[in-house]
Amino acid sequence: MNPLLSGPPAVVAAGVDVFSDALRAQGAEVHDVDWRPPGFGDAADLAALVLDPRRGTANRTAVERVLAAGSVLTDVRPAREVLGLTDRTILHAGPPITWADASGPLRGGLIGATLFEGWASTVAEAERLLAAGEIALDPCHHHSAVGPMAGVTSPSMWMWCLEDPVQGGKAYCNLNEGLGKVLRMGAFNDEVLTRLAWMREVLGPVLAAAVRSMSDPLDVKAVLAQMLQMGDEGHNRNRAGSLMALRELSPAVVEVDAASSDIAAVLRFIGGNEHFFLNLGMPTAKLAMDAARDVPGSTMVTVMARNGTEFGIQTAGTGDRWFTGPAQTPVGLYLGDYGPDDANPDIGDSAIMETYGVGGFSMAAAPAIVRFVGGTVPDALATTERMYQLTLAENPAMAIPILGFRGSPTGIDVVSVARTGWLPQINTGMAGRVAGTGQVGAGLVQPPRECFEQALTALAAEVR
Amino acid sequence: MNPLLSGPPAVVAAGVDVFSDALRAQGAEVHDVDWRPPGFGDAADLAALVLDPRRGTANRTAVERVLAAGSVLTDVRPAREVLGLTDRTILHAGPPITWADASGPLRGGLIGATLFEGWASTVAEAERLLAAGEIALDPCHHHSAVGPMAGVTSPSMWMWCLEDPVQGGKAYCNLNEGLGKVLRMGAFNDEVLTRLAWMREVLGPVLAAAVRSMSDPLDVKAVLAQMLQMGDEGHNRNRAGSLMALRELSPAVVEVDAASSDIAAVLRFIGGNEHFFLNLGMPTAKLAMDAARDVPGSTMVTVMARNGTEFGIQTAGTGDRWFTGPAQTPVGLYLGDYGPDDANPDIGDSAIMETYGVGGFSMAAAPAIVRFVGGTVPDALATTERMYQLTLAENPAMAIPILGFRGSPTGIDVVSVARTGWLPQINTGMAGRVAGTGQVGAGLVQPPRECFEQALTALAAEVR
Repeated sequence: MNPLLSGPPAVVAAGVDVFSDALRAQGAEVHDVDWRPPGFGDAADLAALVLDPRRGTANRTAVERVLAAGSVLTDVRPAREVLGLTDRTILHAGPPITWADASGPLRGGLIGATLFEGWASTVAEAERLLAAGEIALDPCHHHSAVGPMAGVTSPSMWMWCLEDPVQGGKAYCNLNEGLGKVLRMGAFNDEVLTRLAWMREVLGPVLAAAVRSMSDPLDVKAVLAQMLQMGDEGHNRNRAGSLMALRELSPAVVEVDAASSDIAAVLRFIGGNEHFFLNLGMPTAKLAMDAARDVPGSTMVTVMARNGTEFGIQTAGTGDRWFTGPAQTPVGLYLGDYGPDDANPDIGDSAIMETYGVGGFSMAAAPAIVRFVGGTVPDALATTERMYQLTLAENPAMAIPILGFRGSPTGIDVVSVARTGWLPQINTGMAGRVAGTGQVGAGLVQPPRECFEQALTALAAEVR
Repeated sequence: MNPLLSGPPAVVAAGVDVFSDALRAQGAEVHDVDWRPPGFGDAADLAALVLDPRRGTANRTAVERVLAAGSVLTDVRPAREVLGLTDRTILHAGPPITWADASGPLRGGLIGATLFEGWASTVAEAERLLAAGEIALDPCHHHSAVGPMAGVTSPSMWMWCLEDPVQGGKAYCNLNEGLGKVLRMGAFNDEVLTRLAWMREVLGPVLAAAVRSMSDPLDVKAVLAQMLQMGDEGHNRNRAGSLMALRELSPAVVEVDAASSDIAAVLRFIGGNEHFFLNLGMPTAKLAMDAARDVPGSTMVTVMARNGTEFGIQTAGTGDRWFTGPAQTPVGLYLGDYGPDDANPDIGDSAIMETYGVGGFSMAAAPAIVRFVGGTVPDALATTERMYQLTLAENPAMAIPILGFRGSPTGIDVVSVARTGWLPQINTGMAGRVAGTGQVGAGLVQPPRECFEQALTALAAEVR
């Protein structure tokens, strides 16, 4: 007689409950195994990573560094001084790229910066220099910097200089220009260049003098934490953060030795830009993620960034290597008469916010954002709930009130992404695909799966 | 044969569903009537009001005036100029009261104002003048004004001057002093009087010059609306509102002809006070509620205000008559070592915010407030849901994002309060019961039922 039939069955059930429930109802002994087919990724790679004894500890180490990181504003200085951009170099968002592969908004930003620096006096001349490789291009991320949208950063631009007082890191970001026709969205007309010149001549020096005069440096992490209590998610809603930055900076600004009309113009400029804080939030997230660089065995994502053509990620276990795939085009809401055909694929280093667990990951804290990026309030709540499945920790410093002050979902695990098949949710601005257009809208986007497939393979190769 | 038994039953069911459901299951014809016993109030009074043919139209008229009201900041002027306080008069919060009946914090505020005005040089002398009736007391509400907590307003204090550009009303409120040891909480020590003198000599004149120089007057209603998108409810959370007020005022402030140290001090004072906006929000609500004064037949509440001893309400159908009951003591969270025994009964005109549909009525917009007034996030959501049962309209200008941008519950109907037995939910600061203490906490409180019972009787008497 078959032994299966000679005694009571002992069953191990994986997958849907209906089978195990039916057996259990008949008195069978059932052991449930929480398993489902992986969302994507090579099974042997996944198995190697799941069985890697280093992984638990390494991921804990990595995410604890992220959670521990602080962020204070220490200075405002020209890029050439702090990023070492002495010769003809322009930094850009995302993974490395050449002029030939650059999309419209990145080309627009590069043309604008070339004109702004005086390296060319016409658009045609700028395009010729850039196409000839006479101006070097390098990712912001290779210089401890981040830049929203095109991320174009050239030597004469003033940079926020931030430090992590806990772990000693430094990070940099240029000053936010506002919305609409702006360099980071690929616009480069006279309006853009005039504003950049004012930022170089007035805004930067006034902010530098103000920041240096402050006896207590601005605690940028504390502002970001407070934003989540005030309906911002720190990527596409920075209203409260920009107001708090204004509050913290304005007493020092008014005591700067400058014309009162310049002081008033600086306050109006900051007060008129609801995204002013973004360029302080991004280097805050960068400080935290850089603190987790180079933790062997960790499968945590340290960078998500897009150059308008490709989306790239880095992980704590693989150092500075980029894993890339084609950038997707966001879906969302459009300004004025613009529509989906006008939008460029995903661009910008601002996905560092989601890498840190805010932005799209914390949309539950910012239900009003659906009026800017699309979707519904329940979608926003569900997105945050889903991101907890992809992440290693809840950040107690970044509490989400509506979820009973639960910490934001922080530290994307490449293995969890592959196992669930769910991709990180990013909310983002949309640049016009034609150079010179500027912003056309804002929406929701995800990284291409390829980034995570490549990272998985590379991480697994480190194990073997 | 009894006709009840000769045919199929036709049933009219009022009350719990279990009876009608059982009959319906047996095939009986059942007509459900949505009825439950009134929460409180004389049945004949309630019946008279429910049957009053004017009531529907009158309430619609009243609440539409509330929804239509705008609020812009037109000036900052001393109380003696705009409220006509030429002689020894001090205004206070809530319904009329005498020194003999005044609670500790109101007495503390009155003593402080008497010293501040120079009418007395010692506390004992101030108490003697006040007890002798040599200083007249009058409610703020009798002068188109409102004042938070003790609401103490004396001739030398500077007032925000607001106008409703739609219906032409005017409303006034003094300037917010900050938290802790402040006059409105009943403190009157040197720290309080020194700050009041600085507000009279520096803050008021600077704000007056700045406000008069603004080409576009500040749209205070728009700020209040935006606050609900930013985690404020406008009564005990005014963080975003205060920041927006700072943003709107600061460019004009820096261009005022005053010492830069005074300018910086003004910006630091505003930036350091998260409740700065409250004194702009309250007259905004007052403008809206005053627009609905004197609508015969309307059962809508136009004022809820407390003097620390009594809670008083007024309705659109009964003009300036007060309906009062004993003020309750809030339950909430306490500062430092203070506890429930230190708290004075409910005090302040700030319940005008709930009368207008924000504050406690819109707590769903401000889940983080539970860390200040107590309770849980689900409580905050449930409170707003419950207030919709008491109110006549949803204010589209005051949208609550987490509820899918539903308008705030606006226009308390005395009849609905009596029928449901649910009382309006107010969140509020708590003053120490001993004069001179200052703030001891913040919490949740409701009006006494007596106010609504009296209002019901008076409104019914108008019908008969």
